[in-house]
Amino acid sequence: MSTQEFMQKIFAPRSIVVIGVSERPDNLARFIIANLRAFGYQGELYAVGRQPGRVYDISIATSLEEVPDGLDLAVILTPAETVPALVDTCGRKGIKQIVIESGGFSEFSERGRQLEEELKSIARRWGIRFVGPNCISVINLDVGLCLPFPPIDPQSTRRGSASVISQSGGISITYLDKLSASGVGVSKVVSIGNKADLNETDYAEYLIEDPATKILCLYLESLSDGRRLMELARSSPKPIIVHKANRSQASQGIALSHTAALASDDRIVTGALRQVGIFRAESFQEAVAMAQGLVLPSVRGDSMVIISRSGGHAVVAADTAERYGFRLMELPHDFAERVRSLFRADVIRPTNPIDLGTIFDFDLYAHIVEECLQALAPDAVVLINTYSLLEAKRARRLAHRVEEIMKDSGIPIALCVFAQGDEARELQRELAIPVFTEIESAMRALAASRQWYRWHTRRRTFPTVAPPLAQARFSVSGKQVLTADQALQLCQEYGIAVAPWHSVETPEAAVRAAAQLGYPVALKILSPEITHKTDAGGVVLNLSDADAVRSAAQSLLTRFPAKLMVQRMIADGLELIVGGKRDSTFGPVVMVGLGGIFTEIFDDVAFRVAPLTPEDAEEMLTELRGRSLLGRVRGREAVDRAALVQTILAISQMMIEIESLTEIEINPVVALPSGVWAVDARGMLGS
Amino acid sequence: MSTQEFMQKIFAPRSIVVIGVSERPDNLARFIIANLRAFGYQGELYAVGRQPGRVYDISIATSLEEVPDGLDLAVILTPAETVPALVDTCGRKGIKQIVIESGGFSEFSERGRQLEEELKSIARRWGIRFVGPNCISVINLDVGLCLPFPPIDPQSTRRGSASVISQSGGISITYLDKLSASGVGVSKVVSIGNKADLNETDYAEYLIEDPATKILCLYLESLSDGRRLMELARSSPKPIIVHKANRSQASQGIALSHTAALASDDRIVTGALRQVGIFRAESFQEAVAMAQGLVLPSVRGDSMVIISRSGGHAVVAADTAERYGFRLMELPHDFAERVRSLFRADVIRPTNPIDLGTIFDFDLYAHIVEECLQALAPDAVVLINTYSLLEAKRARRLAHRVEEIMKDSGIPIALCVFAQGDEARELQRELAIPVFTEIESAMRALAASRQWYRWHTRRRTFPTVAPPLAQARFSVSGKQVLTADQALQLCQEYGIAVAPWHSVETPEAAVRAAAQLGYPVALKILSPEITHKTDAGGVVLNLSDADAVRSAAQSLLTRFPAKLMVQRMIADGLELIVGGKRDSTFGPVVMVGLGGIFTEIFDDVAFRVAPLTPEDAEEMLTELRGRSLLGRVRGREAVDRAALVQTILAISQMMIEIESLTEIEINPVVALPSGVWAVDARGMLGS
Repeated sequence: MSTQEFMQKIFAPRSIVVIGVSERPDNLARFIIANLRAFGYQGELYAVGRQPGRVYDISIATSLEEVPDGLDLAVILTPAETVPALVDTCGRKGIKQIVIESGGFSEFSERGRQLEEELKSIARRWGIRFVGPNCISVINLDVGLCLPFPPIDPQSTRRGSASVISQSGGISITYLDKLSASGVGVSKVVSIGNKADLNETDYAEYLIEDPATKILCLYLESLSDGRRLMELARSSPKPIIVHKANRSQASQGIALSHTAALASDDRIVTGALRQVGIFRAESFQEAVAMAQGLVLPSVRGDSMVIISRSGGHAVVAADTAERYGFRLMELPHDFAERVRSLFRADVIRPTNPIDLGTIFDFDLYAHIVEECLQALAPDAVVLINTYSLLEAKRARRLAHRVEEIMKDSGIPIALCVFAQGDEARELQRELAIPVFTEIESAMRALAASRQWYRWHTRRRTFPTVAPPLAQARFSVSGKQVLTADQALQLCQEYGIAVAPWHSVETPEAAVRAAAQLGYPVALKILSPEITHKTDAGGVVLNLSDADAVRSAAQSLLTRFPAKLMVQRMIADGLELIVGGKRDSTFGPVVMVGLGGIFTEIFDDVAFRVAPLTPEDAEEMLTELRGRSLLGRVRGREAVDRAALVQTILAISQMMIEIESLTEIEINPVVALPSGVWAVDARGMLGS
Repeated sequence: MSTQEFMQKIFAPRSIVVIGVSERPDNLARFIIANLRAFGYQGELYAVGRQPGRVYDISIATSLEEVPDGLDLAVILTPAETVPALVDTCGRKGIKQIVIESGGFSEFSERGRQLEEELKSIARRWGIRFVGPNCISVINLDVGLCLPFPPIDPQSTRRGSASVISQSGGISITYLDKLSASGVGVSKVVSIGNKADLNETDYAEYLIEDPATKILCLYLESLSDGRRLMELARSSPKPIIVHKANRSQASQGIALSHTAALASDDRIVTGALRQVGIFRAESFQEAVAMAQGLVLPSVRGDSMVIISRSGGHAVVAADTAERYGFRLMELPHDFAERVRSLFRADVIRPTNPIDLGTIFDFDLYAHIVEECLQALAPDAVVLINTYSLLEAKRARRLAHRVEEIMKDSGIPIALCVFAQGDEARELQRELAIPVFTEIESAMRALAASRQWYRWHTRRRTFPTVAPPLAQARFSVSGKQVLTADQALQLCQEYGIAVAPWHSVETPEAAVRAAAQLGYPVALKILSPEITHKTDAGGVVLNLSDADAVRSAAQSLLTRFPAKLMVQRMIADGLELIVGGKRDSTFGPVVMVGLGGIFTEIFDDVAFRVAPLTPEDAEEMLTELRGRSLLGRVRGREAVDRAALVQTILAISQMMIEIESLTEIEINPVVALPSGVWAVDARGMLGS
């Protein structure tokens, strides 16, 4: 049976047994029955508990043996110690889908961890798939399924297009509530708990296929399988929003390179999600605003018209529009004229934002919106209505008109409402489109819609995954540091231009090498023990004749028991860092940053997960705050961007092909108007 | 009569006449009467209109002559053309305070601008002070005064500690609404319109003195008198929040037509507000969150305890706390023990956030909060309660207990509530403390409280203002560009160390000067026409002997008809830019930034308004994103921060003393471990 078939029975079971039910008022499993009844679940329903009794219209069986075999779903909420045996009984009775809400497993203690392992092995034995443990489980508003034990109010929920996957039970309800109250509405919710069996990617896979789900909204504290989630997202026709918390966990251990040091898990998460078009939300509010944007018609570009009854709100909206990269369209002269002639003279000035300040007829607002859409065909409209409660009836009629206009025109309109008391919330209950109560949220929403449109209409190349190499020279036991010569050699093999060099052991050999390479040259010590050569005083730059080389070589060899690298100096260029490392969640990742203090002080780096496409590498460069340094600056020509992209791709390839390569960093890569040169590098094999 | 006395009668008039009233249902002035009646205004009330009639319990007089002389306040809402004559009549009748709600003045047309001038001169003649025109005027919930023409719902307003000054009528109501619904509450609101007479600073001065106002919240699209607002804020015992909009190019169109606003350089606004401890909010939501924080007891430091019923919300809170610079306290071992023994074993793990997950007794939550406060004395507590509607009664009892605990302990507790439907809003109506529904807002609030505590408990030096100089050599007619030698000369006079130089006219004189200064030297052309010397090829650096100087000088003198500066090269150091300019709103301002690409690409600069204190200059340096470059970096010693502060203060002094100095910029200032050197400079006198 495929995971999808299991999922279908978990989210839309025709028969359910709830285990752990009693008549006691503080019994939690009772509330599962209560929720199912409140939401009008129509399937077969059984309850099992230690004492006989009756809960709602259901009598409590005292043994699981008493309920029919082969039910679609068992929901367990009993002490942890009792769960493995119950799962085993389910297996025997042909119940293949289980939701385990009980806590007390790996999240709680060592004993709990053992119990969780036991669960997994029993489930495997019977071919059972399960949700949880330690979760509040599953809601499917489309079929009246509501399995959480906290009581849920059906009046406050609303069916709609978002489905929620949450690693926290509490937050699954927060999203159910906020999405219900936002004009988006909810189809399915799953609280995934310890994800001992099914994890976020399994649910995501199911929900991407689920016809009722149009938007996926994930709250995660850890990623079970980052790469699989990325693959799903890459081909998903539905937008995915991830609210990833637990970001403050510092990366552990002392890292060899900047690439490793800067790779706090969180920045890799950001890069990885961006790489596959997943939205990353920083708060409940941002996630909901994004979802609101994604239920609007697509925003296909940057042009915008703002229409507002209050001049102040228009000013705030114009500020915010600019921050989100929208462009206020100029109104053609005849537009203002036509509006004036339609209504009355002098009410509208030909400016955008359009100020409705002196018009009091709400029906006219709708005409002006329609006129705007026809005459200007903007990519997006923001309509801000500020009104008193006395005007609420007319304002609501306008809102319904806006809903129709949007449906007919296919042009997104963000309706912002500022009114006293609960008016905006009540209006939202009446409408199928989002009602925004913060201008910031409206703009965030429209920007999300635009971002999704750009992402999913763009033709993308997919990375080709090279097979890992089995070359003997890269198989190591333990750790092996690659010195500059070894790391640069590797770069060269992957087609990266390396500043020419020789490794030597004596001052005279250094002088001969320098003559061959051409002056000026640099000398560097080569020692696996000394990775930070410059800090250790192991680098001498800009040596311009044989005498200088000889004396520098003598001095270095006296101080360090090492070989020397003699390297031709590369002309002044823009210094960058390009590196790769292995992340515990995403596997091989690639980093690029502007060199030196830009990386160290301004933290100006971008990450992507290998393998990369050329577009990915381009996007990394575009993401750098100091990106304009790559262009023409102060008379210096633009650097060779294509060569830089090739270098990033080479590192990506290297990380994919050489499985034992833990870390590699070229620092600096010197970028010139024509070509880029790897000047120094370090790396590590094994771990 | 002082402005304060006028203000007292505007905000708490014992008698009012509303002018422009009629029985027609679309008459706007009627709603002023309606609002006054709805809010229970108890003073004398008169109405004047063109037709006799009755509105509510008030009969409409057909002439202003018919109402008694010497009323405290007239409210005018009639066509603009009629307003000057009405103001004149008010003057004759001894009515000295007027609110002009009518639009159609300078915000609308040239004719309107003339009318506004007329208003001002009539008012001046009679000693009248007025609010507006083009506003929705004044609300004072403390005395039932509600003068706006849009109908306001008294049920949705709540008395409290914030007063609002808004340059937009619509936004004044939005803040009334949002502050009322946030647990902060409102005392007074004024929509200031075109501020033809009274401006935001006048109102702020009154409200700072007003006993009922504890927090000032300003929405502004332009600043009438930035320096006076700064002076007020500097000595204000009450926090001031400024939501300054109209920051972008796009919104300038609408602001001009709205309240005739002019945007000043937004970064100067940010620097100026920060300089005097004013909070700058970027959105309604942020302003309200700040106000919520400012009604809590003071947050005196960074230590925090998070207590949450939902583990997920706790994780999100911990992430957010870190972002706002709070530190989660470690719980002492005996704390967890004591809580365990008080309640039951194993329910609480000794971690912060404290997870209440397995406790279902809401009364215990209050005990745990109390235990926390006693045992740990944290600077702030965040209590997150997620609950179902079935638990609402107990949750509300807990919320009331939290209110008491906070009052008794003086320790700030941000109560966050996640519940379905309208529960959080309804709970807020019952409570005098804020109920947060976003974790982000709770942290923003606590951070605002901490920021205010730090600001107003800090001993600050006040800048001393030097008298402007009347030196003849600085008095210019028209513009006069200062060449590098002149600008550096000026720096020297203000005690700034300048890299030694001579100005010369021949190659031989250059050679003599170089010998005197010591090698290496630089040559620069001195020409008021060429301010960007480097771009023009007018600078040659690092000349190390007489021949080099001679030939460079010859080459420069051939190409440029100018004098030359010969200057000793300064050793490698950190390059900064320090400058001053005159801002249309704030007058003389000072800027510091990291030199070169840091300023150009990363826009890493800080502004303050002159005169500066040493603390101001220090803060500017601390504000730079690249601030760590000032410290020890890569083996280079920290630069001479004290000398840098002195240089910033010297520019401040120069901008204050020399009134004709429009612009001055030292670029670069080279900062060394000991001392800083001005190397190049430019400036302008006159304008």
